Amino acid sequence: MNIIIDRASPIPIYLQIKQQIRDRIVTGLLPPGYRLPPERKLAERLDLNRSTVLNAYHELKAAGLVESFVGRGTIVLETEETDEGAGEVTDSASAPAPLYWKPMLTAKAAAESSSLIRDLLALPKRQDAVSFGVGVPLPEPELLEELQQMAGRLFTEDRGEVMLHSPVEGRASLRQALCDRMRDRGIRCPKEEVIVLSGAQQGLDLIARTLLSPGDCVLAEEPTYFSALQTFRAAGATVIGVPVDEDGRLRLDAMESLLRSYRPKFIYVIPSYQNPSGRLMDASVRESLLHLAYRYRTPIVEEDPYGELAYGEKSPLPIKAMDEHAHVLYIGTFSKLLGPGMRIGWIAAPKPILKVMGRMKQLNDLHTNSVAQKLLDAALREGAVDRHLARIRTLYRARRDEMCAALKRYAVPGMQWDVPMGGLFLWLRLPGGVNVQELAVRAADRGVDYIPGAPFFAEQPKGSYIRLNFARADIERIGEGIRRLCAAVEDAMEGPEVTGEREQEGTIPIV
Amino acid sequence: MNIIIDRASPIPIYLQIKQQIRDRIVTGLLPPGYRLPPERKLAERLDLNRSTVLNAYHELKAAGLVESFVGRGTIVLETEETDEGAGEVTDSASAPAPLYWKPMLTAKAAAESSSLIRDLLALPKRQDAVSFGVGVPLPEPELLEELQQMAGRLFTEDRGEVMLHSPVEGRASLRQALCDRMRDRGIRCPKEEVIVLSGAQQGLDLIARTLLSPGDCVLAEEPTYFSALQTFRAAGATVIGVPVDEDGRLRLDAMESLLRSYRPKFIYVIPSYQNPSGRLMDASVRESLLHLAYRYRTPIVEEDPYGELAYGEKSPLPIKAMDEHAHVLYIGTFSKLLGPGMRIGWIAAPKPILKVMGRMKQLNDLHTNSVAQKLLDAALREGAVDRHLARIRTLYRARRDEMCAALKRYAVPGMQWDVPMGGLFLWLRLPGGVNVQELAVRAADRGVDYIPGAPFFAEQPKGSYIRLNFARADIERIGEGIRRLCAAVEDAMEGPEVTGEREQEGTIPIV
Repeated sequence: MNIIIDRASPIPIYLQIKQQIRDRIVTGLLPPGYRLPPERKLAERLDLNRSTVLNAYHELKAAGLVESFVGRGTIVLETEETDEGAGEVTDSASAPAPLYWKPMLTAKAAAESSSLIRDLLALPKRQDAVSFGVGVPLPEPELLEELQQMAGRLFTEDRGEVMLHSPVEGRASLRQALCDRMRDRGIRCPKEEVIVLSGAQQGLDLIARTLLSPGDCVLAEEPTYFSALQTFRAAGATVIGVPVDEDGRLRLDAMESLLRSYRPKFIYVIPSYQNPSGRLMDASVRESLLHLAYRYRTPIVEEDPYGELAYGEKSPLPIKAMDEHAHVLYIGTFSKLLGPGMRIGWIAAPKPILKVMGRMKQLNDLHTNSVAQKLLDAALREGAVDRHLARIRTLYRARRDEMCAALKRYAVPGMQWDVPMGGLFLWLRLPGGVNVQELAVRAADRGVDYIPGAPFFAEQPKGSYIRLNFARADIERIGEGIRRLCAAVEDAMEGPEVTGEREQEGTIPIV
Repeated sequence: MNIIIDRASPIPIYLQIKQQIRDRIVTGLLPPGYRLPPERKLAERLDLNRSTVLNAYHELKAAGLVESFVGRGTIVLETEETDEGAGEVTDSASAPAPLYWKPMLTAKAAAESSSLIRDLLALPKRQDAVSFGVGVPLPEPELLEELQQMAGRLFTEDRGEVMLHSPVEGRASLRQALCDRMRDRGIRCPKEEVIVLSGAQQGLDLIARTLLSPGDCVLAEEPTYFSALQTFRAAGATVIGVPVDEDGRLRLDAMESLLRSYRPKFIYVIPSYQNPSGRLMDASVRESLLHLAYRYRTPIVEEDPYGELAYGEKSPLPIKAMDEHAHVLYIGTFSKLLGPGMRIGWIAAPKPILKVMGRMKQLNDLHTNSVAQKLLDAALREGAVDRHLARIRTLYRARRDEMCAALKRYAVPGMQWDVPMGGLFLWLRLPGGVNVQELAVRAADRGVDYIPGAPFFAEQPKGSYIRLNFARADIERIGEGIRRLCAAVEDAMEGPEVTGEREQEGTIPIV
């Protein structure tokens, strides 16, 4: 391999090396499986510092072109592009050949990104599997019937305006309905401070695009919603997990010291029946957190998909409701109440930042689809959403109780959990000896699914967890599902431990 | 105003000045309406070059904090933030006060961005105005009736799966339907190479996010779709306009020399009945363009919203149909055929790049809303889309003819246009003497609307144009609308010129 170094060139030497090796891989001169010279050897031959060659190899790895294997050295990888014939270019420099896309990607697009949700959506299931997995409800017949009735006039009323553009910020009537709904939870904001979103995920994405530059930092509860982690990280930010104490309360002392040390762009929280932990942040912690935000002049991004799904007392007021100094961006969604298919969420935020997000949304998708906006507006105004909520509160509470009862019956020694007071999730700590890869296989075999806990952690988790959606399965199958799950856990573990349901109200101890 | 310059600081002096003035504005020390010292004076006082102070003031203007007014000097503006009390912070450093958001924004979010579409969506109209403006069709009653029928079983069939998640890439059945439809236009691709989008705009955005880094370059026809310009520019790219010749043919010589000189990330084209020019790129140009793309190993982004709206002969095959070496990303949409309210588009692209876009889409909005996907799938499979297309081809052709006839009747000397062979748009060159700002006011007064041409140009346009959507107005009002328009043009002009309809098939000469 004859690398030529031009020391007079403005291009750094490691990039010159990378470029020349890359060209040979792309053009097929260095075929898949080819072993690059050891770094030390190449450095000697070129009379360079070894770290320069190391850097070049590192770049090639980042580009997905080579990989280092212990004992085998650094090997040229089979890339999708060469599979499809990008190598043809060797025959004749001018012959057309498929493009080699990887070097064209932006840094964000090239970044490795796990796609947990996508994989889950595509997952094949045993016919009789009991699903505690995906974090969304199943459609209930009464709701479907009510929606069907409203859909019966969607296209014929208002001269088909449902086929036309909506404003970027959303239909005025829906924005007002959202404000009315928020007012019931103590949030007073005019409709000018609300944008209708194509689902809450778009809110996370717009916030990332608007506020996060590479190198920025975000503070979040530990654990937290993995899609938020993914989104903030994809924007180049580092997410620092803020621990909870033994009673599951957010550690405000840790929060303050992190605020002071890292000057984060914002604090991300899900105060009510959190995903994945099911935790409820109490009113006093909410208030203290808000005052920390004031003191450190740091915005709070509050996501609240579950706040209305309380199975005992109402949940405390959202932080947004206490905010008197325009520090809180509040994201709501109907995906967890009605179902995710309509993709309608919203964000309520101070005007200066909302204006910028509106511009970003316009560049993203012009506006949220008018069909779902009009339908949801009708469902809100005609009471269908409230009637549905009343029904599912009863339904989901019963399912939660059933799951907790089944866990008491079947729990494997070492399992720990709290009874969630609302929302969809029970957060189960597994016994110490469980092999989580093994568990995934065993549970699929036995026909039960769940979401593994690891992706929800910003830092290295202490202990293994899984998230169970108790609201999703038929009540008469929940016991069987938990039985299967516990059997799978036993299959996948080595040693015994102590079991027990923890006291009410508190949550999982993770530190 | 006591500015302190630290010549030993690594911070450039103009930024030191900017920072100190900014701080005083934000904290309220310099109130709205305060007049900054004239640049020359401040430069003298600080013993600096005047251009240093100029730069500082320029930065303050860019941040929206001050503005220069002729005769009044440079004045501190009322910012939204200070309106809302950000100034309070002067009373006590620790008292809570609304955040000052501007310094928190990412570069992209902070970038000035015109919001032409948003402004248009919000524009108040004269009650009896004739609309040649917004580039989308109005709902037709037969289509609405057919859609209403399909919507009548949307929520009750398939156990309400419409309320559930769809795959990130779209519902398999809709992806297949899109492939079938593309095959009728000569494009052969498996459904694995298609992603359903939340409107074509999301496709432009995903492409920008995936391929464009600041400093990149894109080649586009001149003029081109302004929202594409906005999107690519918001990603930090420079768009270079490629001129057409006197017959409206894309100048391939110019294209090649730009490919050679600027190594663009991709070429963006709308070959069929382009927005805004109505131009049709002929088959031989399409083929030559593709071969240029092969030769320079540069992807083509082909947008094709209007290709099926042909009023005479069928349009030539899309470039994607000729692509044998995976160079073309093809974006389709139903917004221009059915109406934009459903927000459904799609992208067909080579697998390696499509995979990355899927990851980006997941982070953006998880997936496109299931309601509109299911509805559109039914409309495609049950023939409603084709029946609608057959109807509107006749309807829109008649409207086009009516507009051309009215233009012949009322045209002001100096106006030039081509008869568009398909699509929605007639691109009208205005006589030399027209004041376009004046025209906007006059046209609104007289009750007719259109889209001004300037935002469609990447470079400085030669001559003034407006875009007329001939498909939008009732046929019996088109003549009146053109009469009003021509009267408004006469109001807004100074000198006479030569009029004339140009020959068929060719398009507007803009170089």
